[in-house]
Amino acid sequence: MTHARRLAAEALGTAFLLAVVIGSGIMGERLAGGNLALALLANTLATGTGLAVLILVFGPVSGAHFNPAVSLADAVRGRLRWGDVPSYVAAQILGAFAGVAAAHLMFELPLFAASQHVRAGLAQWWSEFVATFGLVTVIIACVRHRPGAIPAAVGAYISAAYWFTASTSFANPAVTLARAVSDTFAGIRPVDAPGFVVAQLAGALCAVALARWLFFPAVPSGAHNDG
Amino acid sequence: MTHARRLAAEALGTAFLLAVVIGSGIMGERLAGGNLALALLANTLATGTGLAVLILVFGPVSGAHFNPAVSLADAVRGRLRWGDVPSYVAAQILGAFAGVAAAHLMFELPLFAASQHVRAGLAQWWSEFVATFGLVTVIIACVRHRPGAIPAAVGAYISAAYWFTASTSFANPAVTLARAVSDTFAGIRPVDAPGFVVAQLAGALCAVALARWLFFPAVPSGAHNDG
Amino acid sequence: MTHARRLAAEALGTAFLLAVVIGSGIMGERLAGGNLALALLANTLATGTGLAVLILVFGPVSGAHFNPAVSLADAVRGRLRWGDVPSYVAAQILGAFAGVAAAHLMFELPLFAASQHVRAGLAQWWSEFVATFGLVTVIIACVRHRPGAIPAAVGAYISAAYWFTASTSFANPAVTLARAVSDTFAGIRPVDAPGFVVAQLAGALCAVALARWLFFPAVPSGAHNDG
Amino acid sequence: MTHARRLAAEALGTAFLLAVVIGSGIMGERLAGGNLALALLANTLATGTGLAVLILVFGPVSGAHFNPAVSLADAVRGRLRWGDVPSYVAAQILGAFAGVAAAHLMFELPLFAASQHVRAGLAQWWSEFVATFGLVTVIIACVRHRPGAIPAAVGAYISAAYWFTASTSFANPAVTLARAVSDTFAGIRPVDAPGFVVAQLAGALCAVALARWLFFPAVPSGAHNDG
Repeated sequence: MTHARRLAAEALGTAFLLAVVIGSGIMGERLAGGNLALALLANTLATGTGLAVLILVFGPVSGAHFNPAVSLADAVRGRLRWGDVPSYVAAQILGAFAGVAAAHLMFELPLFAASQHVRAGLAQWWSEFVATFGLVTVIIACVRHRPGAIPAAVGAYISAAYWFTASTSFANPAVTLARAVSDTFAGIRPVDAPGFVVAQLAGALCAVALARWLFFPAVPSGAHNDG
Repeated sequence: MTHARRLAAEALGTAFLLAVVIGSGIMGERLAGGNLALALLANTLATGTGLAVLILVFGPVSGAHFNPAVSLADAVRGRLRWGDVPSYVAAQILGAFAGVAAAHLMFELPLFAASQHVRAGLAQWWSEFVATFGLVTVIIACVRHRPGAIPAAVGAYISAAYWFTASTSFANPAVTLARAVSDTFAGIRPVDAPGFVVAQLAGALCAVALARWLFFPAVPSGAHNDG
Repeated sequence: MTHARRLAAEALGTAFLLAVVIGSGIMGERLAGGNLALALLANTLATGTGLAVLILVFGPVSGAHFNPAVSLADAVRGRLRWGDVPSYVAAQILGAFAGVAAAHLMFELPLFAASQHVRAGLAQWWSEFVATFGLVTVIIACVRHRPGAIPAAVGAYISAAYWFTASTSFANPAVTLARAVSDTFAGIRPVDAPGFVVAQLAGALCAVALARWLFFPAVPSGAHNDG
Repeated sequence: MTHARRLAAEALGTAFLLAVVIGSGIMGERLAGGNLALALLANTLATGTGLAVLILVFGPVSGAHFNPAVSLADAVRGRLRWGDVPSYVAAQILGAFAGVAAAHLMFELPLFAASQHVRAGLAQWWSEFVATFGLVTVIIACVRHRPGAIPAAVGAYISAAYWFTASTSFANPAVTLARAVSDTFAGIRPVDAPGFVVAQLAGALCAVALARWLFFPAVPSGAHNDG
């Protein structure tokens, strides 16, 4: 698989992911008549199912990270070459912005507009830490024990995390940057983006550290355990 | 498998698909008390689960296209004989209209009635292009890497696409024509149908072109990659 | 597997199915504040997931019919001995009534009460015919091509059918009789039950006839086809 | 797998489970504008998907009980050493309280606060008995016949049980104790917790007794049966 194909898969997959997140947020808010629970339910349903499908489609080509925090975790774990990280992250960010523009075009909005949605403070950062810690833990555990379940597991995890975190679980630096230029339901003020990214990267690194101990015990071979 | 069986599977499957789309749209709108988000949530839940089951049921017989854009893509890719395309498309369209009539009968409406639901303009056509591009990409990728996942993947994709596109993702010329004769929640004005069909076919063909490069690299055999 | 175990599985499984249908209907209606779409969404979510789990749990013991129409279809197809049909149906009906009582007890209602919910007329009967025709078709096709998918497929089909039929898809004579003694969201007037049962049995028999031709072609062996 | 790893998996998994249950309850109630059906739908969606993922992730390490009633049932069945039960239960309870605190921190609430949500009486206890009886039956049956399906089956079962029981199906003594210190949507008055725990343990033990007869017939080997 050539590197160009892998980058195309990361860019296209992340573009579709943002189109799903932003587009379903707009549609949900427009139809919900002011009821934010309904808007977030629609946003959740679309993101959970859409993300699972995107991982299924692009996983065999690029690994379907769509997320700099996941690429970073993979590099730390020796599963992605450090030299590939910059191009992966660039493809994810470019794809993310293209996806926002594609969604805005579908809903007749300007291609980009700075969000005014305030998302800051310790509770929000703690939410993003927990959300990304969980996401990376889920991915590492599934890669280890049930790789075929990754698409459904990640889609299901994000569906839960949209509701159990106070930040609705961005858990992805590329997604965070791109949502800063969407003045819609799923947006975040540009000034609040860096705090989210720092919390996300911290959560990802903690997950890598914990998972190394928890899922990869130094036991004699032959003790395979499948739950 | 004789050709008559395949055509019967395409017709019956498409009929059930339209019964699901139209019937759940009517039921959703009647019960939702004017809240369109609730009506579309019900419509989405029924279509996503129903479509997945229909593909599971009829896939082994006919391939479960239920969609002229998918049959066209299969023919371009050499997986369906061009000589079979006209009968497939005819079976899909006949089935689609039968399904609309079956749903209207369940809800005590006239068998057919021209829709008055306006769906036109660049944003709508772009939505249908994106929706069908995504649908055909999902199908080709799954056929290539995870054929057993096709029913769930297509159902999940359409669930997301109902919300992330501004057109609620028809993504199917047979469905579009049949929804033009249903003056209900899921309808489309007959005069708006051709624009949708053109956008859908363009999206399908672009997906075939991209997928040929992205999912079928000319690598030496033995380099099997499974994500 | 002794016959007593099979009957216990049919009775217990059908009891849980009715507890799910009736209980979630009551809970949905109580919490929904008059919005029937919300009540039916809750009822659908519980029934679809609950039914899938029940089939998974009791399928290996009794086949997990929980439904006289399915047992009848199996007998016609030679997969269930005719001599076993009466005890299967009796276990299903007894279990169904026990499940209604169990649900009523959870929600502090009288154990049984005649429903006043009118469900009659050609459109309703046509709905039940379509619903049961589809259910039996789904089961036969999955048994033939993908037996491991039956629990999820039946749960997904019923989720769709709750919305695309005007009758909310009872599709089960034992369920119909038991819902007649529940004066709650999911009930049906006792006088309307026979019409439903006749339509359901007709739908089941038509599905058996069609499936025999569609899914079991008389082809030479070796032409195995998996979608 | 060392014992420390197993206890860490039980504690971390139960912590995440409580964060999901409490966090999504708070978020659901805040956004739902007073409509309790919407709040419970959100709570259900998050819990069902989240629980399935947690079992997938931690199952290979500890069995993913997250529940003293499940550990007790496993000990009775000889699948968990009695000597391991106290440390398992302690890890579950500690994890549960940590999860409540983590959720409260995300939503800017005091770490712990006694709930004022009344949940008592025969109907509630009967609900908890039925809920836990069903949960343990599902687990034993899946372990016996389809171990790979356990995560999805348990998530689906709990999704149904949130709606078909009048108590919203706690079905877990550790979860019950921890929900007593959350004065939010998902809480329970501390004084009501013991009644729930007794009903849950009774349900679990009855399920073990029934399952021994129903799923483990004393048949000659070689009669493997798969539904």
